[in-house]
Amino acid sequence: MKAPIPFIHRLNEDEERHWLSLLSQKLPDETILPLNKLSQAEREFADIAVVANPDPQDLECLPNLVWIHSVWAGVERIVRELDAPTFSIVRLVDPELSSTMAEAVLAWTLFLHREMPYYAEQQRTAVWQPIPYVAARDRTVGILGLGELGRASVAKLQASGFNVIGWSRTPKTIADVETYSGSEGLEETLKKSDILVCLLPLTSETEHLLDFERFGFLRPGARLINFARGKIIDDEALLYSLNTGQLQHAVLDVFAIEPLPRSHPYWTHPNVTVLPHVSAATTVSSASTIVAQNIRNYRYLNILPKTVDIQIGY
Amino acid sequence: MKAPIPFIHRLNEDEERHWLSLLSQKLPDETILPLNKLSQAEREFADIAVVANPDPQDLECLPNLVWIHSVWAGVERIVRELDAPTFSIVRLVDPELSSTMAEAVLAWTLFLHREMPYYAEQQRTAVWQPIPYVAARDRTVGILGLGELGRASVAKLQASGFNVIGWSRTPKTIADVETYSGSEGLEETLKKSDILVCLLPLTSETEHLLDFERFGFLRPGARLINFARGKIIDDEALLYSLNTGQLQHAVLDVFAIEPLPRSHPYWTHPNVTVLPHVSAATTVSSASTIVAQNIRNYRYLNILPKTVDIQIGY
Ligand SMILES: NC(=O)c1ccc[n+]([C@@H]2O[C@H](COP(=O)([O-])OP(=O)(O)OC[C@H]3O[C@@H](n4cnc5c(N)ncnc54)[C@H](OP(=O)(O)O)[C@@H]3O)[C@@H](O)[C@H]2O)c1
Ligand SMILES: NC(=O)c1ccc[n+]([C@@H]2O[C@H](COP(=O)([O-])OP(=O)(O)OC[C@H]3O[C@@H](n4cnc5c(N)ncnc54)[C@H](OP(=O)(O)O)[C@@H]3O)[C@@H](O)[C@H]2O)c1
Repeated sequence: MKAPIPFIHRLNEDEERHWLSLLSQKLPDETILPLNKLSQAEREFADIAVVANPDPQDLECLPNLVWIHSVWAGVERIVRELDAPTFSIVRLVDPELSSTMAEAVLAWTLFLHREMPYYAEQQRTAVWQPIPYVAARDRTVGILGLGELGRASVAKLQASGFNVIGWSRTPKTIADVETYSGSEGLEETLKKSDILVCLLPLTSETEHLLDFERFGFLRPGARLINFARGKIIDDEALLYSLNTGQLQHAVLDVFAIEPLPRSHPYWTHPNVTVLPHVSAATTVSSASTIVAQNIRNYRYLNILPKTVDIQIGY
Repeated sequence: MKAPIPFIHRLNEDEERHWLSLLSQKLPDETILPLNKLSQAEREFADIAVVANPDPQDLECLPNLVWIHSVWAGVERIVRELDAPTFSIVRLVDPELSSTMAEAVLAWTLFLHREMPYYAEQQRTAVWQPIPYVAARDRTVGILGLGELGRASVAKLQASGFNVIGWSRTPKTIADVETYSGSEGLEETLKKSDILVCLLPLTSETEHLLDFERFGFLRPGARLINFARGKIIDDEALLYSLNTGQLQHAVLDVFAIEPLPRSHPYWTHPNVTVLPHVSAATTVSSASTIVAQNIRNYRYLNILPKTVDIQIGY
């Protein structure tokens, strides 16, 4: 007999129904249930759980978990809230999500590259003032984080002719991309980027990574896109850099507190574009297919995808 | 002896100098001069002229012209102002220009696709309200005009996953694109497009092509991008369609009168993005290379590129 798989989440009812129905459909050999539908015996027996921002206490009542599958790509919250878990954590790696993110990176890079904030400002005062075109090959886009999302974004930006450089924790080789690692590598990346795109996970090492000193390395007039996590940025330092003109514009999709509080200065800053966490939402249909495939691979082939390294934090 | 080639234009001095210096450099066997530097004998002898928005009278004093090369892609003004010219007109076809235009089409298509006008409006009132993501494959982009610029734009949009359809005067076959022609074809294209991109030349047939009736065929909430010529649009009809919501947003780079007069309602319309004719400016460096090559091909191989059909108007 196989244990039912609990689905542990803090989603709304519609989202829960959607996930449960698609997972059940794609895993006909499994029983997927909300945690409160599992008996005590079933809880003791459960070896897998599917989670979306779970309450850590809910996981404590599942003593024989081997692994849990997060339906989101970012796992910093689980990693922080679970103290030395005995089970492994698998996060969502979904090519559909990577492709949506790469599209967002291209869209807002083009937004900055083609000077849309400048022309919007001109329109406000009915001013007709073209500024000279700069070719994409003459813009250096620096990508912080060369993981699933970073690499998909690099490819998309290269296909549109941008000069792309990138930074990661461990050294990487990517065709036609100058890559850097380590803190000296970060300094180089910052110094060379006209447009900086943050696609790092939030960990103890990346929290407030972009601070006064780091923003100081940027070229005057550089622009920033943060599609990763709000806390990677020191908000005070960012506002300071925008106000001095070191940074010309910031596109922010993620914030230390979400929704961004109504009184936050980002909302009204003329050089900030605020987005309500829309760069790349999980698509239940494609994500449930990935989760189902990972569960099947484990059940029938005893294969787990790359799991999260709790020490490193991602 | 070869006649000097007159350069006839209404550019400013810097632009004139830039053009003359690059053309002279790239055509070491030719003499390129402003018209007023040519003697009467040289004027009678001249067989080629390079022109940028010339005064038609200036061309009348060159009785033996075989052809003129416009350094711009759009020739509607020359065609209108020259009455049955005895010489041929060659317009600029520059892959660099096509690629800049295709980039602009992609940039502002993504601007609409990723709902940037909506999020900018939300930011104005500090509202955090994501709207569901629609995949690029579920957006139909209709391209009016499948010439140099239209086809480059089709390829760029396809590479980003959009469903692309297109319309031209004569029937076309393009891989993975539903193509239409004729006025029934236009109706079909309008009915199917979520985002409509205008890349037509301005001719007697395309003037006010997009009028009340044609806007009426669009899906409710469709969006428009005009990167071709302002007069292709009936401005009253466009404003009406925006006000009824039939059209959700218009991105306009070209206008019947440029610069757009300060009192024009487009400047302040919440659903209009005004650009000061910046979608694809001629780059003197690449354009002068093309012009020089065309002149050499004529001189040494007696080959002329495709010339403008005065009757059809482009
Ligand atoms: N805004 C949204 O809608 C949205 C949607 C999905 C995800 N996200 C965020 O995007 C993040 C990245 O996702 P992903 O799937 O690309 O993650 P990933 O595949 O784990 O890649 C992470 C990348 O960051 C690098 N990195 C991590 N710590 C670093 C450090 N201390 N210094 C330098 N580089 C470091 C990694 O380096 P190595 O290659 O050397 O390991 C790797 O290249 C997620 O963690 C999530 O927070 C946001
Ligand atoms: N905003 C800017 O910065 C900018 C820059 C450059 C150019 N432009 C404008 O863009 C225009 C297009 O340039 P291009 O190089 O792509 O021109 P092109 O190569 O001559 O292509 C024109 C296209 O429009 C189609 N067309 C013409 N008349 C039509 C009609 N009555 N009905 C249906 N289709 C019609 C043609 O159909 P066929 O294929 O059947 O001939 C062709 O596909 C130029 O004329 C210029 O005005 C604007």
